[in-house]
Amino acid sequence: MTFLLKHISRRAISLVKAQDRLLHTGRAVCAGNWKIGKINHVAVAVPDMGKATSLFRDVLGAEVSDKHPQPDHGVYTVFIELGDTKLELLNPMGENSPIQNFLDKNKNGGMHHICIEVDNITEAMKDLKEKGIRLLSAEAKIGAHGKPVVFLHPKDCNGVLVELEEA
Amino acid sequence: MTFLLKHISRRAISLVKAQDRLLHTGRAVCAGNWKIGKINHVAVAVPDMGKATSLFRDVLGAEVSDKHPQPDHGVYTVFIELGDTKLELLNPMGENSPIQNFLDKNKNGGMHHICIEVDNITEAMKDLKEKGIRLLSAEAKIGAHGKPVVFLHPKDCNGVLVELEEA
Repeated sequence: MTFLLKHISRRAISLVKAQDRLLHTGRAVCAGNWKIGKINHVAVAVPDMGKATSLFRDVLGAEVSDKHPQPDHGVYTVFIELGDTKLELLNPMGENSPIQNFLDKNKNGGMHHICIEVDNITEAMKDLKEKGIRLLSAEAKIGAHGKPVVFLHPKDCNGVLVELEEA
Repeated sequence: MTFLLKHISRRAISLVKAQDRLLHTGRAVCAGNWKIGKINHVAVAVPDMGKATSLFRDVLGAEVSDKHPQPDHGVYTVFIELGDTKLELLNPMGENSPIQNFLDKNKNGGMHHICIEVDNITEAMKDLKEKGIRLLSAEAKIGAHGKPVVFLHPKDCNGVLVELEEA
């Protein structure tokens, strides 16, 4: 009995210490069998790709990629490398483009989503679902960069449409 | 005369080559006496700082900073390091917070602005003004990180509120 009490007491002290470390470092004790990585890109929907590309290349002096058609995703993309992340300019391609609705509401364009890398998308999806975060698809899909991606519900992420991409 | 024609011809070829390089590399020939750098942060306005911090720390497993009051800017900030850039969570502080209007329109929160570093803010402001980009203040101000900043008009930047910060 004394042994059991001592054991419980030691366990309680250890938990308090762990919580204390959490409060002081701001670091989660455990987020499941996956890790969050860097921001892969910030996507900006633009009504005029030529004008948007010119702003970043000719006015702001950034390096911009060619325009890539992404017929499977209904968008044209242009990438602007800025440090270890990038802006992804999105412009509608064809009818029923997934960003047309956003541009109808935001005539000048605007920030559409943010993409954060994870090391294991299957584990991330399982863990986030258990934690009550709504995923916008039951399975990961192959994204515009040829890697598995999933989108999280903006209402569960401070109004931000978050894309997770397995890096 | 022949020499002059040869000279003009050589100059024309050289200009065509430069234009060709520009088209192929997507790199601006000249953007003035300043250079664009990395994305310093992406700012997300949040209606509930505790909930937002918990999402990134406890659900997504990211490292988050303490909450910093910024009375001069009417906001509380929390930083989330992701690669060489960060998310900056913004929550209103006091009355007349500059982000209250944004949160009134976006109840769940949302991406508020993007901050890109420049090496010389005075030169950048002069150059951008000449190129027809509207600045939201005539002079650079000291931002939340103690460095000179200026905001560019969203209508001139694809609907995105862009902050430039001298790094």
